[in-house]
Amino acid sequence: MNNDRFLKACRREPVDCTPVWFMRQAGRYMQEYQAVRAKHSILDVCKTPDLAAEVTLQPIERFPLDAAIIFADILLPLEAMGLQLEFAEGEGPVIHNPIRSRAAVDRLAVIDGQELRYVYDAIRVTRRALDGRVPLIGFAGAPFTLASYAIEGGGSRNYVATKQLMYREPETWHRLMDKLARVVTGYLRQQIHAGAQAVQLFDSWVGCLAPDDYAEYVLPHVQLIFTGLKREGVPLIHFGTGTARLLGLMRKAGGDVIGIDWRVPLDVAWKTVGYDVAVQGNLDPVALFAPLHEIERRVEKILAEAGGRPGHIFNLGHGILPNTPVENVAAAIDFVHKLSTR
Amino acid sequence: MNNDRFLKACRREPVDCTPVWFMRQAGRYMQEYQAVRAKHSILDVCKTPDLAAEVTLQPIERFPLDAAIIFADILLPLEAMGLQLEFAEGEGPVIHNPIRSRAAVDRLAVIDGQELRYVYDAIRVTRRALDGRVPLIGFAGAPFTLASYAIEGGGSRNYVATKQLMYREPETWHRLMDKLARVVTGYLRQQIHAGAQAVQLFDSWVGCLAPDDYAEYVLPHVQLIFTGLKREGVPLIHFGTGTARLLGLMRKAGGDVIGIDWRVPLDVAWKTVGYDVAVQGNLDPVALFAPLHEIERRVEKILAEAGGRPGHIFNLGHGILPNTPVENVAAAIDFVHKLSTR
Repeated sequence: MNNDRFLKACRREPVDCTPVWFMRQAGRYMQEYQAVRAKHSILDVCKTPDLAAEVTLQPIERFPLDAAIIFADILLPLEAMGLQLEFAEGEGPVIHNPIRSRAAVDRLAVIDGQELRYVYDAIRVTRRALDGRVPLIGFAGAPFTLASYAIEGGGSRNYVATKQLMYREPETWHRLMDKLARVVTGYLRQQIHAGAQAVQLFDSWVGCLAPDDYAEYVLPHVQLIFTGLKREGVPLIHFGTGTARLLGLMRKAGGDVIGIDWRVPLDVAWKTVGYDVAVQGNLDPVALFAPLHEIERRVEKILAEAGGRPGHIFNLGHGILPNTPVENVAAAIDFVHKLSTR
Repeated sequence: MNNDRFLKACRREPVDCTPVWFMRQAGRYMQEYQAVRAKHSILDVCKTPDLAAEVTLQPIERFPLDAAIIFADILLPLEAMGLQLEFAEGEGPVIHNPIRSRAAVDRLAVIDGQELRYVYDAIRVTRRALDGRVPLIGFAGAPFTLASYAIEGGGSRNYVATKQLMYREPETWHRLMDKLARVVTGYLRQQIHAGAQAVQLFDSWVGCLAPDDYAEYVLPHVQLIFTGLKREGVPLIHFGTGTARLLGLMRKAGGDVIGIDWRVPLDVAWKTVGYDVAVQGNLDPVALFAPLHEIERRVEKILAEAGGRPGHIFNLGHGILPNTPVENVAAAIDFVHKLSTR
C-alpha cells in the first residue's frame, strides 16, 4: 500500500498528515461521472463491475484523496430481497412495493449475498486497478435507513409510516430489522472477502429518532452487525446524520470510527464518543460552495478541534452535493493535507 | 381568564396540572378543518378574519387544550414584502420569485405590518369568541426559516442556495436577515397589541446549521427581535427543530420559553438551556399514531423528565401531522392533565 494514512488513522495510529476522502466523491459534480451516466443508469453502473470500477476511480485519478469508496447504492440489497427498486430521474429512489405489513416482511428473502456478486466483482476489479495507490472502502446501508426506504417507498421527511410500524407492531419491526441486519452483515463480510479494506455502515436517516427509540428499536440490530464483522479485522466505520444526541449510543452499537456531521463540533463529538475510537468528519457539504478562503478557515477549524490526536479522518458531514465546484473539492483536499502536516 | 395554566407555566409559576397545546392543532387531521378548507384556500382562510377565527377555535371546542394559537402561515409576511406566494396542492408553499441576489434583497419592502392587518383582526375576533376560556398565542417565522423559504423558493432538504448566499455574500445575507427581523418584530408587536397573550417565534429549519454558523449568521438577528419585544410584557416562546447543539445559543438569543424537539430528552434540554427559562415540548408528532398505552407511557416519561418543576408546557416536538387520529390527540391531552395533577 503506497498510501496507508486512512487505514492508520482508522486504527488511531500517527500519520504524516490527516487523511481525507469524501462521501459520494464519485458523483454528479464530476463531468467524468456525468459522461458515464449519460450512457448508463445508476443501476447499470452498479451492476457492471467495469463501469462501477471506472466511476470509483474517477475521483482518485483527479484528486489526491486518501481512500476510494466502491461505487454502489445502499438500496441494492433491498432489490435483491424482493423490492422493486427504481431510480426515477430527479426524484431519487422509488420502491414500488413498499413494506407495510407483517406478511410483506415475511416475504422478504434473507439473501446470502450472492445476488450482489456484481458488487464483489466491482471491488476485485477496482482493487486491481488501484494497485495499492489508496485503500478501498466497502459500504452498506444500516437497517434503520434501509427499513425507512423499504417502508416509505422512497425518501421521507417525517418517517410517519416507518415509525408507525415501529410503534404499532414492534414485533414486525424487529423481525424486519433482524432480516436486514443479517443480510447487511453477510453483504459487508463478502465485500471484505472480495478486497474491501474498510467498510462503512450508513445510517443516514437515523437522526429522526429520539435516543430512547434508537436504543430500543435500532441499537441491538446494529450491534449484531458490528459484532459479526469484528473478526474480519478491517476498520468498521459507523455513520449517521442529525445524531447530536445519538453519538454515545451509536458508539455503543459499534464501530472503530464514528462519523460526525457538521451540527456537532468535532471536539465535542470526539469527547462524547470517547478517545478510544477514531472519528470521521465533519465539514458541511454546502461549505464546499463557499469562497476558498472560507473553506480554508473551516478546514483549519475542524483540524484544530481534532487537536492533532491520532484517529481523525477528514470528511464531509454527508455526501458531496451535485453542483459542488470541482476546484473547491480539490482545494479542500489540499487544505486538509497542508494544514495538518506534522 | 378562566384557564391561565399556560401563561403561568410560561412565567414558571406553579400550576394545578401541566398545560398542553399542540403546534398546528388547527389542521388537516380534523374533519371540521377539512370542511372549511374544502371551500377555501389556505390563504383565503388566513386573510378572512372570521374564517381564521373559526379554524383557530375548532380544536378549542373539541379538546380541553390550555391555549389557542391563531391560524395563520409563517410565510404571510414574505408575501407582504413582495414575494409571490402560492400553496400548491400537496406540494407545500412555493415562492415564484425567490431571492438570489443583492438586488432582490434590496427590492424587499420593509413593511410596517399594516399589510397584515387581517391577522390582527383575526386575533381580535378570536379573543372575543374565546371570551377568556384560554389564552391566545400569536406567532411568526424566524428570520432564518423565512430566509430559507425566500431563497430556496419553497421547502428544502439541504438548504444549498440559502447557505450559499450566507457563505458567499455575507453582507447580502445580513441585510436580508435584518429586514426580516425588523418586519417580524413589528408584526409580532402588532399581534400583541391586537390581543395575542403570548407569541412564538418559529425557527423550524434552523437545525440544519452548525453552531458556529448559527452564532454568526442568525443569533444577532433573533436577539434583536426578542429585545424589541421584551417590554411588551407577554411571554415569548423560541422554537426550532434539530436543535440539539443549538439550544444554548437559542436561549442566548432570547425567549422566556424554549421549544424542544423529541431528539433531546427534556431533562437534558432543560439543564442545557437553564432552569431560569421555561421549556415547551417534546413528544414526537409520530408518537400520536401509536397505541394509547404507548402514548401514555411517552407522556409519562416526558412529565417525569420535567420533574414537576414549574415552567413546563407540554407540546409536540413539531406540528401535528395530517393523518393523526383525532381520538389519540384527545387521549394525549387527557394523559398530560391526569398524569401531571399535583
